[in-house]
Amino acid sequence: MNSSTDSARIDTRQTMQAPALSLPEIVPTTLPALDERVTGLLAEPTYPRHALGRIETLLQQLVRIQCTDPACFDGLSLDRPQVLVFAADHGIVDEGVSAFSQDVSRQRVEEVLRGQAPLNTLTRLHGFDLTVVDAGLAQQLLPPADAEDSVALLSRKIGHGTRNMVLSPAMSLRQAISALQAGMDVVRHLPGRVVALGDIGVGSTACAALLLSRLCGVPLPDACGRDQESAGVDSLRRQHRLEKLQAAAARHRKAVTPLEALAAMGGFEIAMQAGAILQAASERRIVLVDGFVAGAAALVARGLCPAVADYLVFGHRSTEPGHRLLLIHMQAQPLLDMELRVGQGAGALMAWPLLQAAQALLARQMPDT
Amino acid sequence: MNSSTDSARIDTRQTMQAPALSLPEIVPTTLPALDERVTGLLAEPTYPRHALGRIETLLQQLVRIQCTDPACFDGLSLDRPQVLVFAADHGIVDEGVSAFSQDVSRQRVEEVLRGQAPLNTLTRLHGFDLTVVDAGLAQQLLPPADAEDSVALLSRKIGHGTRNMVLSPAMSLRQAISALQAGMDVVRHLPGRVVALGDIGVGSTACAALLLSRLCGVPLPDACGRDQESAGVDSLRRQHRLEKLQAAAARHRKAVTPLEALAAMGGFEIAMQAGAILQAASERRIVLVDGFVAGAAALVARGLCPAVADYLVFGHRSTEPGHRLLLIHMQAQPLLDMELRVGQGAGALMAWPLLQAAQALLARQMPDT
Repeated sequence: MNSSTDSARIDTRQTMQAPALSLPEIVPTTLPALDERVTGLLAEPTYPRHALGRIETLLQQLVRIQCTDPACFDGLSLDRPQVLVFAADHGIVDEGVSAFSQDVSRQRVEEVLRGQAPLNTLTRLHGFDLTVVDAGLAQQLLPPADAEDSVALLSRKIGHGTRNMVLSPAMSLRQAISALQAGMDVVRHLPGRVVALGDIGVGSTACAALLLSRLCGVPLPDACGRDQESAGVDSLRRQHRLEKLQAAAARHRKAVTPLEALAAMGGFEIAMQAGAILQAASERRIVLVDGFVAGAAALVARGLCPAVADYLVFGHRSTEPGHRLLLIHMQAQPLLDMELRVGQGAGALMAWPLLQAAQALLARQMPDT
Repeated sequence: MNSSTDSARIDTRQTMQAPALSLPEIVPTTLPALDERVTGLLAEPTYPRHALGRIETLLQQLVRIQCTDPACFDGLSLDRPQVLVFAADHGIVDEGVSAFSQDVSRQRVEEVLRGQAPLNTLTRLHGFDLTVVDAGLAQQLLPPADAEDSVALLSRKIGHGTRNMVLSPAMSLRQAISALQAGMDVVRHLPGRVVALGDIGVGSTACAALLLSRLCGVPLPDACGRDQESAGVDSLRRQHRLEKLQAAAARHRKAVTPLEALAAMGGFEIAMQAGAILQAASERRIVLVDGFVAGAAALVARGLCPAVADYLVFGHRSTEPGHRLLLIHMQAQPLLDMELRVGQGAGALMAWPLLQAAQALLARQMPDT
């Protein structure tokens, strides 16, 4: 931590050398006339005002995302929804911060590729197209022989897992930028107006806790969760985990910008999700965000471009105590609170029918539909 | 209130005269071996324990409802879900406790019959059969000329609205029992393993607040909501409403059993919903409960037969402050918190996809499916 090759200093030098990060343009969606249009459409004389509650505010957001002119508003399009799952490994797992070994990340991805994961069930139920992206698993990922045809696999491997961030930055700035741009690139080629985001990677909640702590000023013990069981970590392990995360935070204490924090303490799947979020927002897609790790990616994306927040729909609040704090900092109220801990985007997909219900309730009031 | 023809005394006399209430037998569902079976099916070595969170506890409940023997367990059936909407009017509306007139109840029902209400949209989206029951609207209900064929209308009118409970009991014990039995009867003729319950009736939240206060010992100002806008009642009206409800509670202070409280301060649609809940539970159907008013019916049903609680799935928490307290007293955590105030069962239907997701996630782990 106190060595002269301080990682923050290395990062600073890398900033000079790294390619410039080119961010897509994201337009804020605020348009009060459109909100009033939605409220007016939903109002009925036989019910109290705002009787549809959060469905009304959700609809206002969705309509603002898809429509730029109240005069041309003709309903919502939720066709061909896409779910993107980014998978990567984390060097900090070497420090014993997770109950699972790195090999489990690959097993989880293979389960998805075989169509046998909880996510696949929800994908089929709700009619999503599923794309799995190897953002940086430690091992070589070979599609299993019994892989399901409907699951697309993209290899955008930035590295074989990040480095152990207790010892050095998780990735170089160059890698962080490559990962962000790979995420943008993946979204650019997707159809549809909705992208749901999930992730797979043992150790990823440690990154999410560190990013939350650094970017929002949340004390690390709170970001890690003082009381509850977290990420397969039992009470005996929790103190050990916190100490390791504190060591990582101290080592990278100078990594304070979103990009520096992402490189020093993030993960390839988090960086790629952040890129995907930015690109999707720039194309005025609805971004459906899953749990703590995808939330940390959203936090990074917001740090890079604040207007992105207008495009984010938070599907689910996980049991991770840090996730509750993250959502407060994002001023976001998730649609569901089902205490899921499977990652993968499962929480985002479970929330999907609420968007469909909202769309149908709006279409019901549209003169032309 | 202090007259010698005290309503509580009248009620007591009516108890003697009223026909005996015949309740169906309801068996508690507790079966730890079955819960363990579900947990075992959902467990996976690559995820933390109980990774599906509340989906796991929901599945345990649904499986317990449908299965009596772990050895014969072969998955969940959610085919042909039914939604029942009970409509009635309330004499207490004469006291100005609602922002709407009684005529609005009929208008809301007609909107449902024409297939144009929010509930119809959700019914179509989620494939429910819809039955509307006139439990006691003030006016004669004629199916509109442009009624939708798919909506069934049953007339089980107990009276033309209840009496004004500030002046006398809302209904006689005989009427309460007739309404309970009509509710049982309606369910008896329905197909499917799931019944969702909703209600329409201006003034019904006043009944729900009074029943909550009486049956759970909640102070009436809390049951009515001290702070928030409630049931279309603005802040100026709230004090007036509370005074009227306090007068009703004082008049019926001796109505302490669930049946007496239901008769004195309930509504026909609440009584009929309570009967429907009891019958559905006795047939081991899953009962999907909507907001505050359906919740009050569930409270009455639980008072009459505590085992019924095992069969109740609470779909939605409304903005009514009393509803939050009611759910705490039922020890229930609703699936959604969308701040809806449309009644009708809309909240229950919005929660339905979570039951479907749970079913699919269980089926995925069943060897034979």
